[in-house]
Amino acid sequence: MNTPACPLCCAPPETLLWRDDLLRVILVDDAFYGGFCRVILQRHVPEMTDLLPTERAQVMRAVYAVEQALRELLRPDKINLASLGNQVPHLHWHVIPRFKDDAHFPDPIWAAARRSTPARAVDAEALRSAIGKHLASP
Amino acid sequence: MNTPACPLCCAPPETLLWRDDLLRVILVDDAFYGGFCRVILQRHVPEMTDLLPTERAQVMRAVYAVEQALRELLRPDKINLASLGNQVPHLHWHVIPRFKDDAHFPDPIWAAARRSTPARAVDAEALRSAIGKHLASP
Repeated sequence: MNTPACPLCCAPPETLLWRDDLLRVILVDDAFYGGFCRVILQRHVPEMTDLLPTERAQVMRAVYAVEQALRELLRPDKINLASLGNQVPHLHWHVIPRFKDDAHFPDPIWAAARRSTPARAVDAEALRSAIGKHLASP
Repeated sequence: MNTPACPLCCAPPETLLWRDDLLRVILVDDAFYGGFCRVILQRHVPEMTDLLPTERAQVMRAVYAVEQALRELLRPDKINLASLGNQVPHLHWHVIPRFKDDAHFPDPIWAAARRSTPARAVDAEALRSAIGKHLASP
């Protein structure tokens, strides 16, 4: 069931990397955090424990596929995973490749920036392909 | 394998809520975020995709048990889940009960505080019991 006022129910134009009946994976439009992805549940549910155990596993399988694809393509210093949803209580996971020279490292990206950094590009097609490969494997 | 310099390998005195061979759950000592828990891997590994799939599932099962216990006991407005590890690259999950009147809501707790709030206590024994109940169920 979708909620008309929720910005994650009614998707704006977005760079889609994967979708199935349960979830979609998008590339976040953030020039300074190239490769920042979100795994978004298709239906409007706030918490992981609102899902069936099989659905939780399917969501996390997508999160791990994105993490693995980002590690292979970008070799980040760390991956950050977060399901917050305080502003938009529609279940979504942030999967963020972090680098020692990024604007906030070693703080979370929601802290005050420590430095200015150049934009960091990512090859969306390569990322889409790598995520698809991981999600297609058994 | 443990790393002597890592503060999560050599645990300081902490309020333990659960432990098994793979992980432990502790209550974070934060007067303003009563109920803030961490699920900490026993061995020194940075990322979820460094674990076997069965281990990932076991870690997330503990995360969900903590989330469910916090929802039952505290009725928070939202649960925040995060595996960051930029400062301490030893896998650990933050499980944070959030309230609309807490210091940072609706921002992540790592952002600048929006308001001052009174301390929020939690009954550690009740939390330990609820987590244990969820982890003991099939």
